[in-house]
Amino acid sequence: MAKAGEAGALGVQALLFDTYGTVVDWREGVLAALLALGRTRGLSVDWEAFLADWNARPFLDRVNTGEMPWMTMESIHRQALEEPLTRHGITALADREIDQLVHARWRLKPWPDAVPGLTRLRQRYVISPLSNASFIGMVRLAKFAGLPWDCVITAENARCYKPRPEVYRTALSLLGLRADQVMMVAAHNYDLRAAQDEGLRTAFVPRPTEYGPGQSTDLTPEGKWDIVARSFLTLADDLGAE
Amino acid sequence: MAKAGEAGALGVQALLFDTYGTVVDWREGVLAALLALGRTRGLSVDWEAFLADWNARPFLDRVNTGEMPWMTMESIHRQALEEPLTRHGITALADREIDQLVHARWRLKPWPDAVPGLTRLRQRYVISPLSNASFIGMVRLAKFAGLPWDCVITAENARCYKPRPEVYRTALSLLGLRADQVMMVAAHNYDLRAAQDEGLRTAFVPRPTEYGPGQSTDLTPEGKWDIVARSFLTLADDLGAE
Repeated sequence: MAKAGEAGALGVQALLFDTYGTVVDWREGVLAALLALGRTRGLSVDWEAFLADWNARPFLDRVNTGEMPWMTMESIHRQALEEPLTRHGITALADREIDQLVHARWRLKPWPDAVPGLTRLRQRYVISPLSNASFIGMVRLAKFAGLPWDCVITAENARCYKPRPEVYRTALSLLGLRADQVMMVAAHNYDLRAAQDEGLRTAFVPRPTEYGPGQSTDLTPEGKWDIVARSFLTLADDLGAE
Repeated sequence: MAKAGEAGALGVQALLFDTYGTVVDWREGVLAALLALGRTRGLSVDWEAFLADWNARPFLDRVNTGEMPWMTMESIHRQALEEPLTRHGITALADREIDQLVHARWRLKPWPDAVPGLTRLRQRYVISPLSNASFIGMVRLAKFAGLPWDCVITAENARCYKPRPEVYRTALSLLGLRADQVMMVAAHNYDLRAAQDEGLRTAFVPRPTEYGPGQSTDLTPEGKWDIVARSFLTLADDLGAE
């Protein structure tokens, strides 16, 4: 793990950020959209359980194996919504209501350290998201949340999902940099493992409440990451970005 | 041609900008790099003639026909440099000197109205370059010139060059918008013609000194463009962006 001052010696020129969970609090924002729907419709539902059941991952994996064709995260979230709607007895949502739930991920709040940290890091590095979001989803989120990206790169640019190596390789190709000149920043060990397998530098910034108060995963580093930082501000310290 | 107030009724959500010539003055910046090389090397060369001979277009066309494989604008500019170097009797440039000439296009000044206009337009629209530049070339230029893009899309995302339709189609796909929700802004009629053929809205902002004092092309609109504006500020007026 690099100490302050050492990090500059890593030769990093660009930083890629996982975004949902790492930069923004998706849970709070999506939960708020579900609660609003519940109030409007007068529904009595355990929305925290509903949210836990609204799981895109199996669909992402099916796209990655080729079992399903490429589709954006919005299409996947729509499909993934069917199971929790049935399970929790919610019927006949209007298209507009489904859109509101899916697009809640375009309007999420950053963690308090995220924008100040990114603003400092941007002075010294090229900074970009590398998210499983759709391209326009990341663009809309950045506008809403004021994320000062230099550019936007997502899984859509590779037409497959993290942790497929093509996602990281596409980012390197677009940035015109070698893998060891690029650092992946994430709150998720699986993402850093896949990035490290491609030769990227890695920084782990745990977000211990991303999944709510009882979170049991991704609380500690599970690999030899180059940097482990408490926040984007200490990450900026470690990377010499004033 | 739309008048102020009408433009909002066009239903446009995103604006794509040609960049070299339309947003930034490439000629002045590249000429400055050539003059600096001339001074350092003590060369007596007609640099304006040299610059006119440094022509990437035939190489872009060869990539578009498949005669040459995909390569970024930097690779093309390197290849296109060989002919003027020979013609003007310049030999044995160091790699570092060639890099300085090629990368001069990463450090160009915006036209005076460009950043103020983009800043206003960004309040109401998603704004992105759609340039034949490499992706990293556009990112570096945006950082240097302070261009407030929401994202970066270039020919590299489509792996072919304007005016190939795939370039415009790739941008629409990434933005998740219909063609009539997107407006191409350019100082070049050929670019607007190709965008219009794909169904995009069009805005012509002539840059009558892009090619120097004797410019004879792209001084006037050569098609039925939705908007013709003197600057990005009057474009912002026409598009209702305060």
